Amino acid sequence: MRTQNGESVLARAVRIFEAFTPEESALTVSEISRRTGLHVATASRLVAELVSYGFLTRDADRRVRVGMRLWELATRASPSLSLRNAAMPFMEGVHDVVGHHVQLGVLDGDEALFLERLTAPGAVINYTRVAGRLPLHASSSGLVLLAHGPADLRERVLDGPLQRYTPDTPATAARLRAVLAEVRRQGYVYCPGYVHPDALGVAAPVRDASGDVVAALAVIVPNEAGASSVVPVVRTAARGVSRALGAPDAPRRRDPGDARDGSATAV
Amino acid sequence: MRTQNGESVLARAVRIFEAFTPEESALTVSEISRRTGLHVATASRLVAELVSYGFLTRDADRRVRVGMRLWELATRASPSLSLRNAAMPFMEGVHDVVGHHVQLGVLDGDEALFLERLTAPGAVINYTRVAGRLPLHASSSGLVLLAHGPADLRERVLDGPLQRYTPDTPATAARLRAVLAEVRRQGYVYCPGYVHPDALGVAAPVRDASGDVVAALAVIVPNEAGASSVVPVVRTAARGVSRALGAPDAPRRRDPGDARDGSATAV
Repeated sequence: MRTQNGESVLARAVRIFEAFTPEESALTVSEISRRTGLHVATASRLVAELVSYGFLTRDADRRVRVGMRLWELATRASPSLSLRNAAMPFMEGVHDVVGHHVQLGVLDGDEALFLERLTAPGAVINYTRVAGRLPLHASSSGLVLLAHGPADLRERVLDGPLQRYTPDTPATAARLRAVLAEVRRQGYVYCPGYVHPDALGVAAPVRDASGDVVAALAVIVPNEAGASSVVPVVRTAARGVSRALGAPDAPRRRDPGDARDGSATAV
Repeated sequence: MRTQNGESVLARAVRIFEAFTPEESALTVSEISRRTGLHVATASRLVAELVSYGFLTRDADRRVRVGMRLWELATRASPSLSLRNAAMPFMEGVHDVVGHHVQLGVLDGDEALFLERLTAPGAVINYTRVAGRLPLHASSSGLVLLAHGPADLRERVLDGPLQRYTPDTPATAARLRAVLAEVRRQGYVYCPGYVHPDALGVAAPVRDASGDVVAALAVIVPNEAGASSVVPVVRTAARGVSRALGAPDAPRRRDPGDARDGSATAV
């Protein structure tokens, strides 16, 4: 199963999939070879096999793309699909009222991964995209996920370098700790200009049947006075998704994340 | 690279991904072994490696699921993502007005594959789901895709067995041929009770910058008098998505699919 230099065939296939990005979604075999470090003959053989399964496809001009079959298999049985399906009706409602961007993020590794984004034409700048990622300490969704995430992740992020995207990004451990305590106390986060000076994010937690936070529902609107009117809209929608997932009716009294500041959690 | 019985490691990994379905999205290693025909030791080793890449994940109870990383890589550089992103604002608009189901399908193999579906609570029965498939001859999206698809596909479907889901399904070659000609002439399809007696589908073609039909936009509503009022809504939205994709402004005069009936194509 292992090739001569000890790397498995599957590891090489993973590297090929990782070579494709939103900006560069069509690559020649020699580009794939360059990006993966695989010999061009190896890349060519693996690409041909992956094309035969529909996991990659070849354009008329022989450039290679990610195949529809990979998306189908990754999506149809994905645990995130049921979350996303439960959230969509509420997200559409929020999008009708607020416009701009409405998005659903989950914790994946040390980042927020976005399962869904609804966007209106002419909406304010937003770095999120579907299947895109944002750092936990700067994005509204990320802050909700981090506030309710595992304690060891929180400590790791608090210890690590915190990139400052704007003067308002919570980029010191003390400030970030205070923001996270506030998220748990208030049940939402309000982020004016944390990622970009022109944009303001509001996010609230989505809980599953066991009461655990499994996602963050967020809106991104222009960073202007009056944006706070979206807070009850976002909280209500996040609560609606949680109920659709079978979350307990009453707000839980305590959250593991509250151990530090000792306050009660408002859902 | 090949294992003893001649099947490659990648082929085995593909079989593992195919074992997961919407109904059975969490499997034990022995279930995976049974479904794939792989020896349990082989399945176990491959699952462990795929878990290490995040392509599969393991529950607290050791059941295996499709991983988020697979979805992320399959989605972020997918050609279908830009189509779906262009379509979503229009689909949301249709969904606001019509309710029930609004969906976006593409041709994949001999079936319609659905990239997106918006659904209202309490909507009429609909067999479509995201990353799900329907036959070309019975579904409204499928009929649009088949009418504008490659001639050899059309002949193959016309020659093949045509499953009858209801008394109204176009399940003879003569009837299907007439429906397809009508789709090309009218620029949409109207399908009362073709898949289920209670549901009615209306679909229209989405074209890309080269004028080719790349998707079908459809609504599914109750099979009742008055449903024809959704036709202009669906056609307008499909035209809007096409314009967003850079499709030519004027309807094209002729379509390859028109060779048989000789009529002009109305977009």
